[in-house]
Amino acid sequence: MHEAKKNIIRKNPAKSIKNETPLTLLSLIEKKKRGKELSAEEISFFIDSVTEGSAPDYQIAALLMAIFLKNINKKETYLLTKAMLESGHVFDVFNQHTIDKHSTGGIGDKSSLVLAPLAAACGVTVPMIAGRGLGHTGGTVDKLESIPGFNTALTIDQFSDQLKKFGLVLMGQTESIAPADRKLYALRDVTGTVDHIGLITASIMSKKLAEGAAGIVMDIKFGSAAFMPDKKSALKLAKSISAMGAAFGKKVTCFITDMNGPTGVAMGNASEVLESLQVLQGRGPADLRELCLELTAEMVFMGKLAKNKRDARFKVEAALASGLALKKFDEFIALQGGPNEFSQQAKNLLKIAPVKTLVVARKKGYVQWKDAYKLGEILTTLGGGRRKKTDLIDHAVGIQVNARIGDKVQVGDTLMIIEHHEHQKNLIENILKEIEKDIVVITPKKPTSSKLIWKII
Amino acid sequence: MHEAKKNIIRKNPAKSIKNETPLTLLSLIEKKKRGKELSAEEISFFIDSVTEGSAPDYQIAALLMAIFLKNINKKETYLLTKAMLESGHVFDVFNQHTIDKHSTGGIGDKSSLVLAPLAAACGVTVPMIAGRGLGHTGGTVDKLESIPGFNTALTIDQFSDQLKKFGLVLMGQTESIAPADRKLYALRDVTGTVDHIGLITASIMSKKLAEGAAGIVMDIKFGSAAFMPDKKSALKLAKSISAMGAAFGKKVTCFITDMNGPTGVAMGNASEVLESLQVLQGRGPADLRELCLELTAEMVFMGKLAKNKRDARFKVEAALASGLALKKFDEFIALQGGPNEFSQQAKNLLKIAPVKTLVVARKKGYVQWKDAYKLGEILTTLGGGRRKKTDLIDHAVGIQVNARIGDKVQVGDTLMIIEHHEHQKNLIENILKEIEKDIVVITPKKPTSSKLIWKII
Repeated sequence: MHEAKKNIIRKNPAKSIKNETPLTLLSLIEKKKRGKELSAEEISFFIDSVTEGSAPDYQIAALLMAIFLKNINKKETYLLTKAMLESGHVFDVFNQHTIDKHSTGGIGDKSSLVLAPLAAACGVTVPMIAGRGLGHTGGTVDKLESIPGFNTALTIDQFSDQLKKFGLVLMGQTESIAPADRKLYALRDVTGTVDHIGLITASIMSKKLAEGAAGIVMDIKFGSAAFMPDKKSALKLAKSISAMGAAFGKKVTCFITDMNGPTGVAMGNASEVLESLQVLQGRGPADLRELCLELTAEMVFMGKLAKNKRDARFKVEAALASGLALKKFDEFIALQGGPNEFSQQAKNLLKIAPVKTLVVARKKGYVQWKDAYKLGEILTTLGGGRRKKTDLIDHAVGIQVNARIGDKVQVGDTLMIIEHHEHQKNLIENILKEIEKDIVVITPKKPTSSKLIWKII
Repeated sequence: MHEAKKNIIRKNPAKSIKNETPLTLLSLIEKKKRGKELSAEEISFFIDSVTEGSAPDYQIAALLMAIFLKNINKKETYLLTKAMLESGHVFDVFNQHTIDKHSTGGIGDKSSLVLAPLAAACGVTVPMIAGRGLGHTGGTVDKLESIPGFNTALTIDQFSDQLKKFGLVLMGQTESIAPADRKLYALRDVTGTVDHIGLITASIMSKKLAEGAAGIVMDIKFGSAAFMPDKKSALKLAKSISAMGAAFGKKVTCFITDMNGPTGVAMGNASEVLESLQVLQGRGPADLRELCLELTAEMVFMGKLAKNKRDARFKVEAALASGLALKKFDEFIALQGGPNEFSQQAKNLLKIAPVKTLVVARKKGYVQWKDAYKLGEILTTLGGGRRKKTDLIDHAVGIQVNARIGDKVQVGDTLMIIEHHEHQKNLIENILKEIEKDIVVITPKKPTSSKLIWKII
């Protein structure tokens, strides 16, 4: 009558006739759906089956939804993080100056491109394992790959070697680090189980704890351009991540930052590299520059390279002003397969799409962001992002955003410049409608803008 | 970074850039996980994708768990039942005397074998589509297949023809009837989403409403030998099923019956056929006989073949006493490929396993059932049930149960006789331990036994 589905059993199924209940994914689902706490043995059985590939997707999906709706407590989150971390390679802590940074992501967030060389120029050892973009958000790896020749596909040994010799390395996510997270994330993405504090914490921390850093600076963004919708959920995530940091004996500082509009001006892979270079050259948009300076100062302080935060900030500003950070960036690009002296020829080497379509204000008033996150969807429509993992990315398309929240504008003022190709003109009409309707609106009353950094915990 | 998973989208995904949100399984999951009501369009999209096979298992599993934990209301249950019903062939109502019966199942429940010919002998038209056993519970189809030659694999046309000519037909579940239920049930079975009133209701009713009956008599069993654990959940299910009957304009009567021990004495496929024959011959265990008489009387009354329930009960007893029911059974068996005059040679034709192991009382006192449902697991261990759909069944093994709740026993009294094969002797020690520990216990105080039929609604 019923189709036989795989039901993974750890112990010998014949034992079910005896007193011992065998450990199965089904037994975990039954427990969690009733809101009961999963044991260490159960959680490690779950993650082992995911890593080995013996767990059927439908049982993982059911368990994820039960976790989503019935929650996991701090202890279970710790055990889940630990099991996921141990599903792959874990680097030993390199030295006390080794500090990593992670951002929960948002529109136009290219701060990693700036702060990695900036921190390294201040003596921080920076072991960065970065992601590719999927859906709305871009990925550091995609952005760097707009630089001809730049290689992010390093081995574990190459990663360690470069860290030792140069103090700065960036590689793309690999099957070697927290493979259980890759599989779980892929399923969470299509089963409505992404936006759960415990699952997000375990996903982020299982990867970050593997990188061999002594401490981690987290940038948790909230607002219409970010993954977390509001302060409340951002604070909740920050507390959960801090607790995990403490549980694993890692220094973790969480910045909770406002992202009710895009960070900086540029959006799009090549454009964001150019804008990062501007900041490293001492210029660039004020919000991006300030965010990078503050995050890097925290890394410098956490890495015991400054007496206090004030001293750290001073060191970071000096590394920027002296050109040391820019030099470190150029060396870093060359070391990983990119051109020599990249910053001097970046404008020629980075291809920007030729057609510029202006988005202009149709009435006067003040800029208000509605659903800035949707800019990511528009970039994806233009080919600058991925709908699925196998999609190829067009690094040249982008959007220059000229409108900060609260800006006063007149009719005809430019709000954005869309950088696209000739053959994409047919897409533009719908994109303009979408931007006007759902993304940026003009209001008669000046909206209140909030501080860039809301809280540091 | 993430593996690409299938995400079924009904409309053109390019539309997502416009205002319209495309209908996807993910959007249904997102809605249900927030406890929102699914629309008719959404539920039919869900069931269409399941039926077509385009819905990935992991999204079905996540949605089932969200439904399990966030519930579906009466309207959604109706829409789900309707969509599942319409996923396959739906017979027109044959005539006003066409009445079907369904039991939620339990240990030793062979009442369908008795009441189908008994009701038919009273003039009821009986279109029965029955299941095979899986896990703890046996299936009517498996039991009948212990009769040499008996064929339950009928086509839709054969089913209709026999119903018209003979007034009684039984076939196994087929892909033609409610195929969406088959797929959903298979997944529910392995994702911890079986025991949910709304999902159970939709599963039962989508199949039963397809059979062309004017009315349905439901036997909803509760207790340690049944699928539903207690009166409360059985009553909840009865109310939900009655509401669906009303919504679809079908007469439905729900018997809520006590099953704190097995029904009758025999358990095992061939043994249960023999015991059913005893009842049809006017003998057999009192509880089984009484249950069959009452359920059949309701079918006769519902089928407008008696003025009232008292008259119906009289007609049923007469059909049993006169031998008409037994004759109908023999004709039915012959018509579907079994031997002629089966009842006269049943003892020779049905193979019963040769070794009899007694389970005896080790102390004096009163019989109390603890977890009678586990007898099903023991039968499965002996080969009399299935762990997965493809398992072959040994019709010969069985258990004769001599212990009703509240029976007074002395040390050494026989509680059960296990009928098994010589080569299974190695299994017996564990089985005996399990029976003594978890299934039947002897208590110093006489437990209260309750009425067989608790409620009729």
